[in-house]
Amino acid sequence: PRPCRGYYVCAVEDLALEGEVPSSVWREQEKAAGETGAEAPGKNEAEARSDWAVDFSPWAIDMTKFPYATWKRITGNVLVDANSELFASGSPKGDPQLRRTVCSYLHSSRGVNCRPEQIIVGAGNDYLLLLLEKILGRHVSLAMENPTYERAYRIFDSFAYRITPVAMDENGMSVEALRESGAQVAYVMPSHQYPTGVVMPIGRRMELLRWASGAENRYLIEDDYDSEFRFRGKPVPSLQASDRNGRVIYMGTFSKSIAPAIRISYMVLPPSLLWIYENRCYFYSTTVSRIDQQILNEFIKNGYFERHLNRMRKVYREKHDLLLEELKRLENGFDIMGADAGLHLLLRDRKRRGERCLTEKAARQGVKVYGMSGAFGGGAGATLERGNPEAGTVRGPALPPDFESTVVLGYAALSADQIREGIHRLKEAWK
Amino acid sequence: PRPCRGYYVCAVEDLALEGEVPSSVWREQEKAAGETGAEAPGKNEAEARSDWAVDFSPWAIDMTKFPYATWKRITGNVLVDANSELFASGSPKGDPQLRRTVCSYLHSSRGVNCRPEQIIVGAGNDYLLLLLEKILGRHVSLAMENPTYERAYRIFDSFAYRITPVAMDENGMSVEALRESGAQVAYVMPSHQYPTGVVMPIGRRMELLRWASGAENRYLIEDDYDSEFRFRGKPVPSLQASDRNGRVIYMGTFSKSIAPAIRISYMVLPPSLLWIYENRCYFYSTTVSRIDQQILNEFIKNGYFERHLNRMRKVYREKHDLLLEELKRLENGFDIMGADAGLHLLLRDRKRRGERCLTEKAARQGVKVYGMSGAFGGGAGATLERGNPEAGTVRGPALPPDFESTVVLGYAALSADQIREGIHRLKEAWK
Repeated sequence: PRPCRGYYVCAVEDLALEGEVPSSVWREQEKAAGETGAEAPGKNEAEARSDWAVDFSPWAIDMTKFPYATWKRITGNVLVDANSELFASGSPKGDPQLRRTVCSYLHSSRGVNCRPEQIIVGAGNDYLLLLLEKILGRHVSLAMENPTYERAYRIFDSFAYRITPVAMDENGMSVEALRESGAQVAYVMPSHQYPTGVVMPIGRRMELLRWASGAENRYLIEDDYDSEFRFRGKPVPSLQASDRNGRVIYMGTFSKSIAPAIRISYMVLPPSLLWIYENRCYFYSTTVSRIDQQILNEFIKNGYFERHLNRMRKVYREKHDLLLEELKRLENGFDIMGADAGLHLLLRDRKRRGERCLTEKAARQGVKVYGMSGAFGGGAGATLERGNPEAGTVRGPALPPDFESTVVLGYAALSADQIREGIHRLKEAWK
Repeated sequence: PRPCRGYYVCAVEDLALEGEVPSSVWREQEKAAGETGAEAPGKNEAEARSDWAVDFSPWAIDMTKFPYATWKRITGNVLVDANSELFASGSPKGDPQLRRTVCSYLHSSRGVNCRPEQIIVGAGNDYLLLLLEKILGRHVSLAMENPTYERAYRIFDSFAYRITPVAMDENGMSVEALRESGAQVAYVMPSHQYPTGVVMPIGRRMELLRWASGAENRYLIEDDYDSEFRFRGKPVPSLQASDRNGRVIYMGTFSKSIAPAIRISYMVLPPSLLWIYENRCYFYSTTVSRIDQQILNEFIKNGYFERHLNRMRKVYREKHDLLLEELKRLENGFDIMGADAGLHLLLRDRKRRGERCLTEKAARQGVKVYGMSGAFGGGAGATLERGNPEAGTVRGPALPPDFESTVVLGYAALSADQIREGIHRLKEAWK
């Protein structure tokens, strides 16, 4: 066809060119919103500022010690040499230099065995899971620990995956239950399970790996989300470190160890899945700017990351120890669980009051603690992040009864005074 | 369960902890590779450096005129005020300030009518399409222009979408053929269709919008990928500007207008889909760092983007006019198409030599021109980006015969001398 030579030769229909979506379209949406009891789109825009005296968020991290000056200097240096190359589109998997750096960091710190070409750098775990869906295929039967990480559950649930919650014992996911589930893929957090804090011992790891090797196309997704912070015992290597058959998909992020705003995560694919990625997904462009990749690469390569991690380990250990010390005030009424590693722990009420009762009593004292019933989108009293009550109507399997009187306390972003004040108030709230 | 107190109390199985994926696992993959004729994973790592004397790439842009100094200054300023807020995790849709800025830019430059809350900022179009898949649902029947943008086709093809190629005439996608296809969603590029260069006239736009309003859940995805650059006639507003029924999903990117490395694209959802996003996809974290969002926001808000665009329009127009002038040498043998807008045009051989013949003859003169047969992953002689021959074995519907003797010439990244040299060589190659 000849290209159209004129936008103007064609008949103009009677619809206004400068039309707006009329307010009736919005009204329809708002009416629908009213009927389901949810808010209209866009109304959540200004996220409510926290009015909490103390917020024991398990997601927040301490950004007061971040080496801002170093980050600025590196950024400046990277941009001094900025040229069209740096601003060009990069490799879909991420820049080779950064992948080499991440590869050697993962080997020395987590025992991960891989080649740089197995690493895919992406803008956050959520994106990497979307990519993994394309690699693993559309109809995966997935086992998840019960309870598990709510965000991961929601994302897998938005796929066509059949999700089976699998019971845990004190060593992590039960391999017997996993076998019975008939699942093809299992999502696990062996270094520090969220939310229970269970650290999976080597025996269970080997059983899991043996399960994975027992049939074609079985894989373990290892989410090593906060492995950098461990307070008791020797460092635990990753599950991937013990995998000799290419069955582990290893995932990690710099959101906890550097900053949530740094949207850089990584996924290590075993050879068989790398193969599928190279053949079926090579056209997905990278999601991280090359400038940011280079800044991060310099930050790690020049030792600033290691120094920052060591500093934060000390900072978090002090907060962690203070929290445990303060929690002695509650030890008559509560069991403390998951205190070996990571930036949160669990409190279980011996009086067996329900999660909702505990969080509400805390709230009346201005303290925010977190329930666990969201783990599979269900359970009584599940309230979801971002105040979206409608989504909460999707109910999944129930939480094990053990966790019905349990709340999560994160401490990373709190000052010593806030930790003291918070526990003081909780003692009042729950007496 | 009590947390596991010991990594060491459990029996260690006989698998080595420090195991590596043995080379036999790699060998298996490599053997499989050999059998299908494709390369082993990781072998594509070092992407081949271009040896072309002149590369008429339709994807490259001119980065020599980029205001690096301004970008550095803004970055410095943003980081001067850097604090834990800036490094915190941001809104899933993107920062409200950036969305307001993009909203008013899209309104003034493209006539887009929307509220800032309808805009979702994401790390590239590919990511936004992955998100859109979750919004539109898994089993969409999608119409695409034939020929269409190969990358978009590959991405939709990796979904469970049923894709129907729909014939184009000189005004764009045939609405009659669209109706017959039974598709629910149509992906179109009304401002400047890739690769044909067709600019859709208002009459056809209105027909498309009427089609979309004709049934529940019909939508038009408008990819406005290079609307900033138009060389003849009055500026054409977006299709979204004429949509009064909330049927258009508008997508655009800063990759062409700023830099490919800046992984920032945007998608404007109509109210009905925004509603679904808010209820089903609110948990997907943003994929763009807040620092980058703020830098971009300052770059646009303070007028640097407009100034850069005006400069680039002039630069590209000069190159475009030079290319047309030089192409007069070929006008006896070739028809020129799609020269009204955008950063590429088409050449059709009057002798009806095939695309492969044309690209190979050009290659022997050191000139890279691009065929169109990749549009639906098929057609004779399809060679895919990143040298992945195996993927090329998936054949889609054939290209219309009109395009079998047609090649694409992009010019944005070429100097005046390169354009002259390139056309000189093409005349030799194709004489």
